Amino acid sequence: MSGVGEIRFIGRVESAGDTCTLVIDPEYCPALLGVENYSHLLVLYWFHLRDNDEHRGTLRVTPPRHKGAPLTGVFACRSPSRPNPIGLTVVELLRVNGCRLDVSGLDALEGSPIVDLKPYSSRADSVPDARTPEWSKRGPPA
Amino acid sequence: MSGVGEIRFIGRVESAGDTCTLVIDPEYCPALLGVENYSHLLVLYWFHLRDNDEHRGTLRVTPPRHKGAPLTGVFACRSPSRPNPIGLTVVELLRVNGCRLDVSGLDALEGSPIVDLKPYSSRADSVPDARTPEWSKRGPPA
Repeated sequence: MSGVGEIRFIGRVESAGDTCTLVIDPEYCPALLGVENYSHLLVLYWFHLRDNDEHRGTLRVTPPRHKGAPLTGVFACRSPSRPNPIGLTVVELLRVNGCRLDVSGLDALEGSPIVDLKPYSSRADSVPDARTPEWSKRGPPA
Repeated sequence: MSGVGEIRFIGRVESAGDTCTLVIDPEYCPALLGVENYSHLLVLYWFHLRDNDEHRGTLRVTPPRHKGAPLTGVFACRSPSRPNPIGLTVVELLRVNGCRLDVSGLDALEGSPIVDLKPYSSRADSVPDARTPEWSKRGPPA
């Protein structure tokens, strides 16, 4: 029931902020063909500062940014401390320039390795009225 | 600009179909605390049958299930052949029973290792009107 897999980083977050620039490594650039036809992407990235035994061994947290949050399993919140330090954010794709993508809405840190990019499909990925606990509605979106 | 990361599988898809049962390994079960308060989850899983050089080296495909689709980069479609064989699906959480979760909407294969579970937040994850190319609207949702 156990096992491991290998992630090969495909690029990096070059600059972070309201607008982020993602730089895809040249060897993976051909995989961007057609990405400009989407308004939104799912960005999977690596919480590189949490890739250690302490943070990967954290199974429960009290979400610090949500007032009144109870002790919560990391599979029931978006804590960056989790067994696999993968972050997932829906971003708006602003511009594609060769191997560089400008996006908005990404909460990654500068230098975060990128794991994958997937196009966002409202048919598959949008659930406007998903139920969440009350505490999660206070504070940031996720 | 390169590098690798290690994924530790947290469980498996025990049975696949309209309803899937996910079984989380006992050591990671404490991380499920509170998951029952969400109606939907993001499931990250491993395309274990594609974890080889051929499929991980595939950078462009012609999406086979979408009529008229052009040659497309794997970062612009949801191909299971991609540099990192991670699948991502939004599922409805039907039931939690200890370390077992019944979900609907998962397109994973029986035996697929699970990489991560994240609670779905409509505020962060729902974009009802994302733009996608015409070909993507024919065929399955993603």
